[in-house]
Amino acid sequence: MAGSSHAFQAPRGTRDFHPDEMAVRLHIEQAWRTASINHGFDEIEGPTFEHLELYTSKSGPGIVSELFSFRRSGGETDFALRPEFTPTLARMAAALGRGLPVPTRWFSMPMHYRAERPQRGRLREFRQWNIDVIGIDGPDGDAETIAVALAALQALGLDASGIRVKISHRAVVSRLLTDLGVSPEHMADAQDLLDKRDRIETAAFAEKAAALGLADDAIERFAALGAEPVAASTDPSTLADQFDVPAEAMAELTELRHELERRGVLDFCEWDFSIVRGLAYYTGTVWEIHEASGSERAIAGGGRYDTLIESYGGPSVSACGFGMGDVVLELVLRDRELISDAMALMPRPDAFVVSIGGDDTNHAVVPLLAKLRGAGLHARTTSKTTSNLGKLLKDAGKCNARHAVILGDELADGNVVVKDFDAGEQATVPLDDLIEHLADSGRQ
Amino acid sequence: MAGSSHAFQAPRGTRDFHPDEMAVRLHIEQAWRTASINHGFDEIEGPTFEHLELYTSKSGPGIVSELFSFRRSGGETDFALRPEFTPTLARMAAALGRGLPVPTRWFSMPMHYRAERPQRGRLREFRQWNIDVIGIDGPDGDAETIAVALAALQALGLDASGIRVKISHRAVVSRLLTDLGVSPEHMADAQDLLDKRDRIETAAFAEKAAALGLADDAIERFAALGAEPVAASTDPSTLADQFDVPAEAMAELTELRHELERRGVLDFCEWDFSIVRGLAYYTGTVWEIHEASGSERAIAGGGRYDTLIESYGGPSVSACGFGMGDVVLELVLRDRELISDAMALMPRPDAFVVSIGGDDTNHAVVPLLAKLRGAGLHARTTSKTTSNLGKLLKDAGKCNARHAVILGDELADGNVVVKDFDAGEQATVPLDDLIEHLADSGRQ
Repeated sequence: MAGSSHAFQAPRGTRDFHPDEMAVRLHIEQAWRTASINHGFDEIEGPTFEHLELYTSKSGPGIVSELFSFRRSGGETDFALRPEFTPTLARMAAALGRGLPVPTRWFSMPMHYRAERPQRGRLREFRQWNIDVIGIDGPDGDAETIAVALAALQALGLDASGIRVKISHRAVVSRLLTDLGVSPEHMADAQDLLDKRDRIETAAFAEKAAALGLADDAIERFAALGAEPVAASTDPSTLADQFDVPAEAMAELTELRHELERRGVLDFCEWDFSIVRGLAYYTGTVWEIHEASGSERAIAGGGRYDTLIESYGGPSVSACGFGMGDVVLELVLRDRELISDAMALMPRPDAFVVSIGGDDTNHAVVPLLAKLRGAGLHARTTSKTTSNLGKLLKDAGKCNARHAVILGDELADGNVVVKDFDAGEQATVPLDDLIEHLADSGRQ
Repeated sequence: MAGSSHAFQAPRGTRDFHPDEMAVRLHIEQAWRTASINHGFDEIEGPTFEHLELYTSKSGPGIVSELFSFRRSGGETDFALRPEFTPTLARMAAALGRGLPVPTRWFSMPMHYRAERPQRGRLREFRQWNIDVIGIDGPDGDAETIAVALAALQALGLDASGIRVKISHRAVVSRLLTDLGVSPEHMADAQDLLDKRDRIETAAFAEKAAALGLADDAIERFAALGAEPVAASTDPSTLADQFDVPAEAMAELTELRHELERRGVLDFCEWDFSIVRGLAYYTGTVWEIHEASGSERAIAGGGRYDTLIESYGGPSVSACGFGMGDVVLELVLRDRELISDAMALMPRPDAFVVSIGGDDTNHAVVPLLAKLRGAGLHARTTSKTTSNLGKLLKDAGKCNARHAVILGDELADGNVVVKDFDAGEQATVPLDDLIEHLADSGRQ
């Protein structure tokens, strides 16, 4: 074997998807795509890598260490593998200029890349579903994005007992932090600290909070923010006193509550003003979906970013959306035993064709397979050379075939035997009727 | 706008896929996936980037200039975006060792990357369908891969008049080149030159051929290789004299011919001994699919590589397969007007819900959309505030909806009006029966 052995392994933080793992990934992708389409979103995609400057121009050069960046041999510009889709989306929307339809509903689900240390729930290469609504200013836009996220998660078997949508608002958080004594120049750092709170030791958190100028009692109140989220059935305007925020600041969330209720998803939601989202571009509502016990990272995160598209040279148009990665989601689904059997997720053969006759019968298998496939059916055969029917049927069972098509003595009269595994029935079928027979009895 | 303007464009040689372009891409992917599944292949995928050494260990350091390679900031190993899938496949198969089932049929269709100058039919980022059969030694394996490629192309509307499978064999080509006077040390270069022949000026070709030690008349015969391909209905053994090759060398192709015939695809095929394929790892049959007029690059290319998996530390097992990129294929499909209307490729809404009543009726739209989507239907509404039915129906037509669901005065009695655009019919339907009505009349 040439080369050192590490070259023959997948790079750290990336994944090989063998068929059973791919079936799980496709199962998740299918739920994402179906929810998107049913909610009226159109699929888009952009390049895997962008000009590095697309990312640094908004986030500053500090982001470079989190990126896989590179330069083509002999080239003059730097590129980076996309760490998130929003800059590409903003660029694509901006490029349409005045031709951008309003509203526009786009989704995508490509791979993303982060050059960070891999850990539970965070890999260097991951699939992410991105939903964006462009041009709906009000909370109905935000409610729509939350509803589509929940539709996919429900299709995957999660219900309101398993997941929580934790909703916050940048303006409310800013007001709360101001009340705690955070000065405007420390606001961004304080929001960042709040975002990281669950991943930092208590002592380190207190130290960092003190460095932001917070007094001891303020640090305590800071740490307690969102410790007891409030069910979304509670009208946010009634929280104004409790959180020492004027009722007006809650008006947008009150309207959001109404929009969530109309979509039948209010019981998944709660108000949690510890949610800020790390990215700088959010301007209003922000939210995350968490597994109910809170034991994993966020399943999804999103919010409103009304200035982003304009900042990429596009029209001044509002936008909101979210991203949902596959890594945490798969952990949650596996933990709840919602992905127990990869085989059940794999495409089922309509026909598993076997021969238990002589040479003539054996030679009929390949042309019959070609005929069935030509008719759009999923047809397989065995690699075994036995004519022991029991062994052959076991082979058919291994790939979860709907039917076995058995070529035997009946073939001389133009007939085959079809065994329907689901119905437990067996019938002799004229070869000329086989495609119709399989289509009628097999495909639900 | 911050940054220079190039950052806000897709990198050269990559593509933005807006919804209509994405619909075309998904149409092609769907044909690839369906053909793969129907032929009994299981889907896999590997990382977007691999250790650089995975590519250089087999192809030598010369390949680096064709790769997008990079090193993580602070990291110690070099990576490269995958230029082709076969090394990943070989690595994944090798990793299973003795656990690799034989035969194994795998397919994948991820993005690939080449740092070459973009030109017609060749981009820096492209989607490629990869089919691999592992563990079938005989030409039935090769025939199977050709049949699955043709099944996808036929599903996309191409027939035997539009595409040709040009089949060759490395051993036959070597023998022909030896007969022309190519010495063993020049064999690889001569095959490479033959592969590039159509993309090189005649004079340059002759010069390079002379440098390989070919005499003038040999250069002429070299240039004429494959100039007149032979229909695959001709038994290759009868070509032995014409091509001055012993009949034994044609035995494998004769058997391949039989296997292609059994699969009903012989009329797509021809013998063309100018086909060599550029990659070094092929060991036997090689083939390409070309648009019939020969005006574009190859649509697909493949062959047999029996030593590859072992060379990556895996078991000694035979393999054959092909790759089919999306760039040339889309050019061919567009040229033949097989993709004329992207709208027809986009998912059709089952219901386009509109209100022509008052506030109560308007407020019923969102909950009804939620209900329809909850039942798995694709439901949209208008962004217009008009209650002019003509304008609303025009909106429904723009997204090619199957039905308009019209909320009006009938809603007070629990009814809606459903207009079926395909049937040109209209009916008053109780709200409670709406989902069943749409499912029955809309989804084929």
